[in-house]
Amino acid sequence: MSHDQAVVKAILDGARAAGRASLNSTESKEVCDAYGIPVPKEGLATSSGEAAELAGSIGYPVVLKIVSKDILHKTDAGGVLTGLTTADEVVQGYEAICQSAREYKSDADITGVQVQQMLPAAQEVIVGAVTDPSFGKLVAFGLGGVLVEVLKDVTFRLAPASREDALSMIDGIQAAEVLRGVRGSDPVNREALAALIENVSTLIADFPEIHELDLNPVFATKDSVTAVDVRILLTKELPEPRPRPSQQEILASMVRIMKPKSVAVIGASGEEGKIGNSVMKNLINGGYKGEIYPVNPKADEILGHKCYKSVKDVSDAIDIAVFAIPAKFVAGALEEVGQKGIAGAVMIPSGFAEVGEIELQRDMVAVARKHNVRVMGPNIYGFYYTHENLCATFCTPYDVKGQAALSSQSGGVGMAIIGFSRSAKMGVSAIVGLGNKSDIDEDDLLTFFEQDDNTQVIAMHVEDLKDGRAFAEVAQRVSKQKPVVVLKAGRTAQGARAAASHTGALAGNDKVYDDVLRQSGVIRARTLNDMLQFARGLPVLPTPQGENIIIITGAGGSGVLLSDACFDNGLQLMSMPKDLDAAFRKFIPPFGAAGNPVDITGGEPPITYRNTIKLGLEDDRVHALILGYWHTIVTPPMVFAKLASEVVEEARAKGIHKPIVASLVGDVEVEEASEYLYDRGIVAYPYTTQLPVDVLGAKYRWARAAGLL
Amino acid sequence: MSHDQAVVKAILDGARAAGRASLNSTESKEVCDAYGIPVPKEGLATSSGEAAELAGSIGYPVVLKIVSKDILHKTDAGGVLTGLTTADEVVQGYEAICQSAREYKSDADITGVQVQQMLPAAQEVIVGAVTDPSFGKLVAFGLGGVLVEVLKDVTFRLAPASREDALSMIDGIQAAEVLRGVRGSDPVNREALAALIENVSTLIADFPEIHELDLNPVFATKDSVTAVDVRILLTKELPEPRPRPSQQEILASMVRIMKPKSVAVIGASGEEGKIGNSVMKNLINGGYKGEIYPVNPKADEILGHKCYKSVKDVSDAIDIAVFAIPAKFVAGALEEVGQKGIAGAVMIPSGFAEVGEIELQRDMVAVARKHNVRVMGPNIYGFYYTHENLCATFCTPYDVKGQAALSSQSGGVGMAIIGFSRSAKMGVSAIVGLGNKSDIDEDDLLTFFEQDDNTQVIAMHVEDLKDGRAFAEVAQRVSKQKPVVVLKAGRTAQGARAAASHTGALAGNDKVYDDVLRQSGVIRARTLNDMLQFARGLPVLPTPQGENIIIITGAGGSGVLLSDACFDNGLQLMSMPKDLDAAFRKFIPPFGAAGNPVDITGGEPPITYRNTIKLGLEDDRVHALILGYWHTIVTPPMVFAKLASEVVEEARAKGIHKPIVASLVGDVEVEEASEYLYDRGIVAYPYTTQLPVDVLGAKYRWARAAGLL
Repeated sequence: MSHDQAVVKAILDGARAAGRASLNSTESKEVCDAYGIPVPKEGLATSSGEAAELAGSIGYPVVLKIVSKDILHKTDAGGVLTGLTTADEVVQGYEAICQSAREYKSDADITGVQVQQMLPAAQEVIVGAVTDPSFGKLVAFGLGGVLVEVLKDVTFRLAPASREDALSMIDGIQAAEVLRGVRGSDPVNREALAALIENVSTLIADFPEIHELDLNPVFATKDSVTAVDVRILLTKELPEPRPRPSQQEILASMVRIMKPKSVAVIGASGEEGKIGNSVMKNLINGGYKGEIYPVNPKADEILGHKCYKSVKDVSDAIDIAVFAIPAKFVAGALEEVGQKGIAGAVMIPSGFAEVGEIELQRDMVAVARKHNVRVMGPNIYGFYYTHENLCATFCTPYDVKGQAALSSQSGGVGMAIIGFSRSAKMGVSAIVGLGNKSDIDEDDLLTFFEQDDNTQVIAMHVEDLKDGRAFAEVAQRVSKQKPVVVLKAGRTAQGARAAASHTGALAGNDKVYDDVLRQSGVIRARTLNDMLQFARGLPVLPTPQGENIIIITGAGGSGVLLSDACFDNGLQLMSMPKDLDAAFRKFIPPFGAAGNPVDITGGEPPITYRNTIKLGLEDDRVHALILGYWHTIVTPPMVFAKLASEVVEEARAKGIHKPIVASLVGDVEVEEASEYLYDRGIVAYPYTTQLPVDVLGAKYRWARAAGLL
Repeated sequence: MSHDQAVVKAILDGARAAGRASLNSTESKEVCDAYGIPVPKEGLATSSGEAAELAGSIGYPVVLKIVSKDILHKTDAGGVLTGLTTADEVVQGYEAICQSAREYKSDADITGVQVQQMLPAAQEVIVGAVTDPSFGKLVAFGLGGVLVEVLKDVTFRLAPASREDALSMIDGIQAAEVLRGVRGSDPVNREALAALIENVSTLIADFPEIHELDLNPVFATKDSVTAVDVRILLTKELPEPRPRPSQQEILASMVRIMKPKSVAVIGASGEEGKIGNSVMKNLINGGYKGEIYPVNPKADEILGHKCYKSVKDVSDAIDIAVFAIPAKFVAGALEEVGQKGIAGAVMIPSGFAEVGEIELQRDMVAVARKHNVRVMGPNIYGFYYTHENLCATFCTPYDVKGQAALSSQSGGVGMAIIGFSRSAKMGVSAIVGLGNKSDIDEDDLLTFFEQDDNTQVIAMHVEDLKDGRAFAEVAQRVSKQKPVVVLKAGRTAQGARAAASHTGALAGNDKVYDDVLRQSGVIRARTLNDMLQFARGLPVLPTPQGENIIIITGAGGSGVLLSDACFDNGLQLMSMPKDLDAAFRKFIPPFGAAGNPVDITGGEPPITYRNTIKLGLEDDRVHALILGYWHTIVTPPMVFAKLASEVVEEARAKGIHKPIVASLVGDVEVEEASEYLYDRGIVAYPYTTQLPVDVLGAKYRWARAAGLL
C-alpha cells in the first residue's frame, strides 16, 4: 500500500498553522484516503439532480444529510434520510430535507446535502492510535459497543506495526471469537482489517504531530472494512528526541563498566561503617583481580592500597569510579572523572531526584554527558559482576557464579535478589542497581548482556521505563537470543491520563505495558518471587523443541493439580498416541491410568519411575516432562531424586535434552530431594504443584516469542 | 410474591404424563405467570374486532402473528406485523395477515391471530436454571447477546436464592457496569430483575422435575423486566435422595471418631514394614493416651499390647477401628466392627473403587450402613488429631499442635500437608485423608470442626463433592464461625455436559464451583501452596474490624509491589486523613513520602519503624497494617523483628488486635527474622511482597463473607 505523505503533510501543516488541535471531518477523511484507510464514499450535492448523480456513482442504498453551518442537530431538523434506493427517492429526498431544514430554521444558510454510502449491518470495531509518554506512538484495536467499553477489551502495539502484529491484535482480544463468526454469522475480513490497522499505525508513525486518532466505529464485514467515523487530534508540541548513543558506543562503554580492568573509589575510607569503607572491603574481599584506586584527599593508604587525592593523579587508565561521597560533592569529583576518561560512574549516593533535588541530578548528568561518562544511578547499592569477582557495592559481597543477570530499580528489591540468590544457591552473572536511572537504564544493560557469554537469562525489576520505545526495540532483539524477564511494578496504578479520545481513555498504563512487553518477546513476571524463580529456573531448562508435554505422576491428586497448572500456563498436554500409551501401560499397574497424566500410582518401586521417565525422554514425539513424585516408603525422596537424575544424565549422554520439572509432595525429606534435582538440571520444588509448571510455562512463552517453536 | 404451585404441578404432571421432555410455549408462559415471572402480555383473537379489543387491554404498540399449525415460518408467509399503534391498524392488520397467509398456503387451517405486547428497546439479559449433578438446582444470570456468549460472563447460585443472592448476581458479572447504565443510558430496574431471578430460583427449587430453564432474552428497562422467550425442559427421572444422618447424629459419630477413647487396629502386626505395624507404632509413639486394641487372630501380643482375635472379644467399648487388612477381607471384619457398636472405620486399604472395584466398595458401605458405622476412606493414609496425640495412620507421626484442620482427597496432597506443616512449623489440630469418600466426606468433617475448640481454620483439598449441596449448606453455616479454605482441584477440566439449554451450555463445571463456594462463604485457594499458607496464616491473624489498610515500608520499591498485591486481593489502601498524615510525617525524613504507602525510606533507625508501626496500631481509623522491611546496617533484620513484635505486644496489652503482615527483603538473615515474627503473630515472609498480602486478603474475604465487616 503506497501512502501519500505529501497530502497528509499539507493537511496537518494547514491545521497547525491555523492553530487547530484537531482535523475536521473532511480533512480526516482525506488523510484516511491518502493512507488507504477505507471510509464511506460520499460527496456534497447542491441540487437534487447532482445528488441523484452522486448516489448513482456511490451505489445504493445511500444516506442524505443536510449540510448547514446553522444546523447543529441534523436529525432534529429532519435533515437526515437513510436507506434511499433509487434516483427518484434521492431527488425527492433532497427536496424534502431542504424544506424540513427551512421549516426548522427559516434563515438557515444551506450549503447543500451530503450523499453518503449506506453501509450494511456489520461488526463494529475500534481502531485507534495514541501517543504514550514512554512508548511513543501506539496503535490500538478493540471491539466496538458499550460492552467492550465496560470490559476494556482492547490491545496495543508499537507503531508502526507489522501485518503480523496487526493479525495478532485481531486474535489477541478476549472476544476474538466474535470476529471469527459465532452462531452462524460470517467472520470479518481479517486481511482487510489487519491492513487497516497496519495503515493507521504507519500513519501515526510517519506523522509524530498526530497525537491521537480514533476510527470509531469501523464496520467490518466478511467483504470489507470501513471507518465510519474518524477523529484526528494534533499534538501541541513535539517532544525533544532523547539523546541515545549508538549501539556500538553503548556496548564499548558498558563492557568497560561491567568488566573493568581498574576501579577507583571516590570517597574511599579506612573508617568502619562508612560507605567508602564498605565498598573498599567488598572489592578486596570479593576477590577482584583488577587494580583498585582509593581516592581520598585525607589519606595516603587505605586497606593496603595506595590512596590518591584525585583520579587525575593515577597514571594508568581507569574504567569505573564508584562514588561514595555526599551528593553535593559529586559534580566536582565527576568533572575530574570525566577529564580522566573514565567510562562509568557508579553513583551510590542518594540525595538527588528521589528527594526532590532534580536540579542537582540534572547538573550531575550534564557533567557526565560533557565527558561521555555513563552514570549508573544515583541512589543505588552499586553492582556485582561475579565472573570478574567484582562487588562494586556497599552491601554484602556475593560470589555464587551463574548465568542469571538481574537488575532492580529499587534498592529493597536488589536486597531481595541477593538474599534469595544466596538462599536458593542461584548462581548469578550480575546484579545491578539502577535507582534513579539518570542515565544508564535497562536497554543499556540489555545491550551488554546480549553479548555477555556469562549471561543466559536477564531478569529486571522495573518501575518505569524512561524510554519504553528504546527498551522495546532492544528487548525485541535480545529476547530472540536470551530470555528477558520483567517484573513491572505499579501495574495497578492506572495512569490518570487526560483522555481527549476514546482510544486514549482505554489506554490504561498497565495494559500498554502488558501488550508492548509481550510484543517485545519479554516474559512478564507477575510477582517478585516469580521473577526470582524464573531467573533461577530458565537457564537450567533446555529449550523445548515442541508443544507436546507429558505429566508422569505417582500421585493422582498431584496429576490433577499439575494439569490445572498447565492450563493456567497455556501448556498443552499431549494427546497420547496409541502406541506410546500402550508402551506406558506396560510399566504401570493395571489399575493405573495411562493417557496423560500418566498415573503410575503411589505404591510403585523406583523402577516404575525410571522406566516411565526414560520412555518419556526417549520418545521423539514428547517435548517436555512434568514429574509428580509422591513420598512413599517404597520409593523414598532421595531414591527418586537419584534415579530421576540418572535417567536424565543417561539421556543427555545420548544427546537428548528436554525440559523436565518436578513437583515433590511428601514429608520434609522432599526438600533435600528437590535441591538435589535442581542442581542436576531438573527444576523441582517441594509442596507445590504450581511453581514448577509456572517455570516451564515461562520457558515456553519465551521459546514461542523467540520463534523457536 | 405468592406462587401458585397447583397450577405448575398440573402443567408439569400433564406434560410428563404425555411423555414430553419439554413444555410448549403456552404452558411455559402459564408457569411463569404462576410464579410472578413477567412475560409479554398476549392473547389469541379469532376476529379482527376481538384483536382490537385485546390490543386495547394489552396496551399499544402491539405485534400480530398468525397462528396456524400449517404455517411454520410465519414471517415468510407475511404472517407477522409489528408496531401497530391504533385499533384501526389492528383491525386492518388482522385482515391483512390472514389474507397473506391464505395466499401463502391456500388450504391453511388458521386458528386465529396472536396479539402480543410490543416491548420497548431494552437491555437483554439471560436468566436460567440448571440441575447440577453435585449441587442440584442452580439459578443462572448473565447478559444477553453474542459477546457474552463468547466471554461466558455468567454467574450461578444455589436455588432457591435469596433476594440478596439475586442482587449479588446482578452486581457480580464482569459487565455489571452495563446494567448500571453507561454512556447516558438508563440503569435497569435492579429490584424487578432480582425479583425475577428469585422467582425462577424458587420455581426450580419447588419443582425438581424441571431440569433446565431458559429465559432468553429477558428485556430489562428502567421500569420493568420481561421474559420474552421461555424454554422449560423436564427431567427424565428424579434422582434418589442421598441418605443423610441428622446433624446431631453426624456430630455424635464424628466426636467419637475424631476424639476416640479407644482404638482397635484390624490387622495389627508386629512385623516391620507391614501397614498394621506402622499404624500400631504411630499410635504408641504418637503418645495416644486412650486404649489400643490390636486385632489379629495370629498373635497374642503386639508391641506390648494384648492382641485380640476379633473386636468382639474386647470387653470395653471401642470408638474407632483402623483397618490394615487387604480389601477382600474388609467386609467380614467390618461386620464384627458393626456388631461391636464401633462408631467409625478408618479404612486405609486400597483396592476399592479407585481400581474399579466398585461392587466391593458398595458392599463394604452396605455393611457399614446396616450397623451405623461411619467409614473414612477407603484408600487413605488415615488421620491425625493432634490434641489427643492421635496418629491413626501408616505415615510418619505428626505432633505439632495448632489450630488448623486440614483434609485431602488425595494421599499425595496429604503428604504435602504433613511435609509443609513440619517444615513451616504449622501447628495443626487435624489432618484427615478422605480418599474415595465412600461415606464420610467434607460436610461431616465441617460438622465436627465447627464445634471443635481446637480448630480455628479448616482447609480442604477437594477433587469432587459427592453432595455439593450438603457441603454448601454446612459450609455456609460453619464459615460464619471459622474460615473454610478449599483447594478445588480439576478446576480446568470443563465437564463435558450434554447441554440441551443455553444456560446448561454456559454451566462449565468450574464456574459453578467458583460461584457456589463464594456463596457459601468459602475462601477458594488457587494453588496447593496457597491452601497451605492460608491454613497457616489465617488463625494467626486477628479478624479485621474495617477496610482501612496502611502500608508502612522502608523500601519504596516494596511499597509499590505491596500496593499491586493489595489491588490483586481487593484490599483498600486507606485514604489518609490529614491529621494522621501529619502525624506520620513527624516520624519520617522530610523527603520520605507520607500518604499511603507510608515510605519511611531506607536508611532509618529502628525508632522510625517503631514509631510508625505504633501509630498505625493505635489509631482507631486504621484496621490492618502491611509492613515492608528493607534490610540495612542501621536496622538489621532481627532488630526489626524484635521491635515490631514488641510494639504489637504492647498494643495487645492495651486490647488492640489488628492483623499485621510483613514482607522482608534483604540478605538471608531476613529468613530467621520472618520466622521470629510469624511465631509472634505477624504473618511475615522473606523475598516476597505478594504472599503476605494474599494471606491478609484471604482473611478479609472470609471476614466479609461471614458478615463481620
